[in-house]
Amino acid sequence: MRLSQYFLPILKETPKEAEIVSHRLMLRAGMIRQQSAGIYSFLPLGKRVLDKVCRIVREEQDRSGALEILMPTIQSADLWRESGRYDDYGKEMLRLNDRHDRDLLYGPTNEEMVTDIFRSYVRSYKDLPLNLYHIQWKFRDEVRPRFGVMRGREFLMKDAYSFDIDQQSARTAYNRMFVAYLRTFQRCGLQAIPMRADTGPIGGDLSHEFIVLASTGESEVFCHRDYLGLQVPGEDIDFHDETQLQDIVTAWTTPYAATDEMHDETAWNAVPDDEKLAARGIEVGHIFYFGTKYSEPMGATVTGPDGRQMPVHMGSYGIGPSRLIAAIIEASHDEAGIVWPKSVAPFDVGIVNMKPGDADCDAACDKLYAECVAAGLDPLLDDEDTRAGAKFATMDLIGLPVQVIVGPRGAKAGEAELKFRATGDRETLPLGDVVRRLSA
Amino acid sequence: MRLSQYFLPILKETPKEAEIVSHRLMLRAGMIRQQSAGIYSFLPLGKRVLDKVCRIVREEQDRSGALEILMPTIQSADLWRESGRYDDYGKEMLRLNDRHDRDLLYGPTNEEMVTDIFRSYVRSYKDLPLNLYHIQWKFRDEVRPRFGVMRGREFLMKDAYSFDIDQQSARTAYNRMFVAYLRTFQRCGLQAIPMRADTGPIGGDLSHEFIVLASTGESEVFCHRDYLGLQVPGEDIDFHDETQLQDIVTAWTTPYAATDEMHDETAWNAVPDDEKLAARGIEVGHIFYFGTKYSEPMGATVTGPDGRQMPVHMGSYGIGPSRLIAAIIEASHDEAGIVWPKSVAPFDVGIVNMKPGDADCDAACDKLYAECVAAGLDPLLDDEDTRAGAKFATMDLIGLPVQVIVGPRGAKAGEAELKFRATGDRETLPLGDVVRRLSA
Repeated sequence: MRLSQYFLPILKETPKEAEIVSHRLMLRAGMIRQQSAGIYSFLPLGKRVLDKVCRIVREEQDRSGALEILMPTIQSADLWRESGRYDDYGKEMLRLNDRHDRDLLYGPTNEEMVTDIFRSYVRSYKDLPLNLYHIQWKFRDEVRPRFGVMRGREFLMKDAYSFDIDQQSARTAYNRMFVAYLRTFQRCGLQAIPMRADTGPIGGDLSHEFIVLASTGESEVFCHRDYLGLQVPGEDIDFHDETQLQDIVTAWTTPYAATDEMHDETAWNAVPDDEKLAARGIEVGHIFYFGTKYSEPMGATVTGPDGRQMPVHMGSYGIGPSRLIAAIIEASHDEAGIVWPKSVAPFDVGIVNMKPGDADCDAACDKLYAECVAAGLDPLLDDEDTRAGAKFATMDLIGLPVQVIVGPRGAKAGEAELKFRATGDRETLPLGDVVRRLSA
Repeated sequence: MRLSQYFLPILKETPKEAEIVSHRLMLRAGMIRQQSAGIYSFLPLGKRVLDKVCRIVREEQDRSGALEILMPTIQSADLWRESGRYDDYGKEMLRLNDRHDRDLLYGPTNEEMVTDIFRSYVRSYKDLPLNLYHIQWKFRDEVRPRFGVMRGREFLMKDAYSFDIDQQSARTAYNRMFVAYLRTFQRCGLQAIPMRADTGPIGGDLSHEFIVLASTGESEVFCHRDYLGLQVPGEDIDFHDETQLQDIVTAWTTPYAATDEMHDETAWNAVPDDEKLAARGIEVGHIFYFGTKYSEPMGATVTGPDGRQMPVHMGSYGIGPSRLIAAIIEASHDEAGIVWPKSVAPFDVGIVNMKPGDADCDAACDKLYAECVAAGLDPLLDDEDTRAGAKFATMDLIGLPVQVIVGPRGAKAGEAELKFRATGDRETLPLGDVVRRLSA
């Protein structure tokens, strides 16, 4: 993409309404725009990051055996009356009526709807296990939306729902998602720690939140330093191997880790002081096992091996890709702007033409651009006639992993300067070696 | 994907509520499920087709220079009061109130919001042309939703919005989308004919609908037979070449073509009788040029070359990917089920194991499956222990382009039978040649 043909509305001023750094940087970098309280548009740069995050989420859901569907945003109130949550949910639920005055709502989550899908089609235990997920917009009418997409009202959520014949299989389904989440967050460049969590309005008795440590986190968290050294399973993990899955989950749940609301002072005091990590954290995922809480009242049953009808055991598993972007920025930024992990960067490389109109600069930049594309890299070429300071500030702000700076003198000499965003390291290279270095 | 691990809820009965063939087939093939009147879930098979269609739409939008953003579904009523459409829009608009009793609505389209984004950032004619698009769910509260996703209430729409300094540039923007649409529909396996159309509630004075001819179409259309022979521009089309674009648009708008509401009997009578094509059609896209209809009341102006402020000229351009799926099925099916064009088929090939449990069959199918994946093909392997008749009926119903049938005798002899869905042609091939044949 050439900057002259792109829409990248950089803000020079720091927006006053933004209280946290991710919100400030997403506004300044032209990634998002607030349309109403807690409701945002993703501008081109933000949309690119959202796509990258969703792709990682999707790949790891698929790898674990979950199947992608897409449920609508608008749901019938009747479904929620069946589970009893229509009255329970309170004012966070956006309720509405259509032209025929039917009660509808904008889904804050999809347990009821997916249970309805399940009971419409699945009859036998032989069709289990089943895990259906979707990535769809949700709405929760927060009293005081804030922190940008970190706590928006309309937000994107990946929610998965598992269906199993009994508690033990359901536990394996839970473990599959647990492992898929570890992989997902790691691929997004985050270190996320699973912590026992309260189940809240979803219900059930087993639940973990995945928490990213960040000084700007919304809640206090307490965990053992051992987590920092634990290995995340590789791509070769076998999601059919129940023992392997359980071993991983055991390793990741044995050291002490709890959010504020589940914190146990006695257990915490048993952790040696120099192993204690008391910090602030951001929730980036939340998984639940809630047994037959929805299947029983909603009649989602299957015929078991013995011919009897039994309600299925369910779990649900959520990641908010829009919130995840904010968490990544909270965890990875500096004074100059965002520092994207490679996997979610909106472009792989920024090429900076220091003097558009200069024949050497233009030729060198065009050649680098074409070579990047040919090598499968996605470059952003700053071909605009602006001051050097503004060019560098923009590149640092939008946080692409590498910048390739091409000035008239360098171009004449057949050289470019590389700047690595995370470290600030610089290298001068012959133009012909640049793309090989970038692909390394 | 293995069928035993997939969720493909085939219906044996023809659903009574489905009036048109695409609706019937999408329900029977387990692609969609109705959640409320005019509101559907996409099940795994349907989601795959939706993704393929969206990908084609996106690639052609990007190729034409449009930039992808993502606006929210919920909009503030105030924006629509600025354009005057809040009161005009009638009961099709789903209006709602949040907990603070603010007037909101579920966007039926996004002219106002995108104009608001534009005016917030763009100041100079130098930043034009600009075309922003998104693919997002819309809601139109139809009195009588029907025909499945063909006329749903919650539906996916790709809507693009162009901004230009004057009418002539805006016309070029219009032409770009016109050409992108021709390419998009062709890549989806459709022959779509652009027809002069009424502008309706969007406004403006230049508009074309893209109509697919199908006997089940919703409206009567009239066009010159010449359209059937016109060439759709290739990938190498230069979207910066205004003359080339205009020539294509001229070629595609010169022969007579009109929907019922724009039909001109006098012009139609001038078409020789044997060149007349009076048929029924399905609208799959609609493009509009409406000048300053929104930019003027909403103050979306830029500084022109002469330093004066001027309102930008705009157009909007819509394709409904969910509706497009139904149109593809209307245009391509037979008695046995759907016949997917290759480009949008949910899987590239169906491998039918006629006797799961038979060692030769299992080995041959597993090998074919692995070879397909290695060759970049996406196979669906029917590894379920069901009757031959049911297997064939399912494969025909879901309409994958090719079936590879592996029975015990063939597997022993090292052979498989290929069946091409569109033609019914069959070939028997050595197992080792199958994937080469499929990739050809």
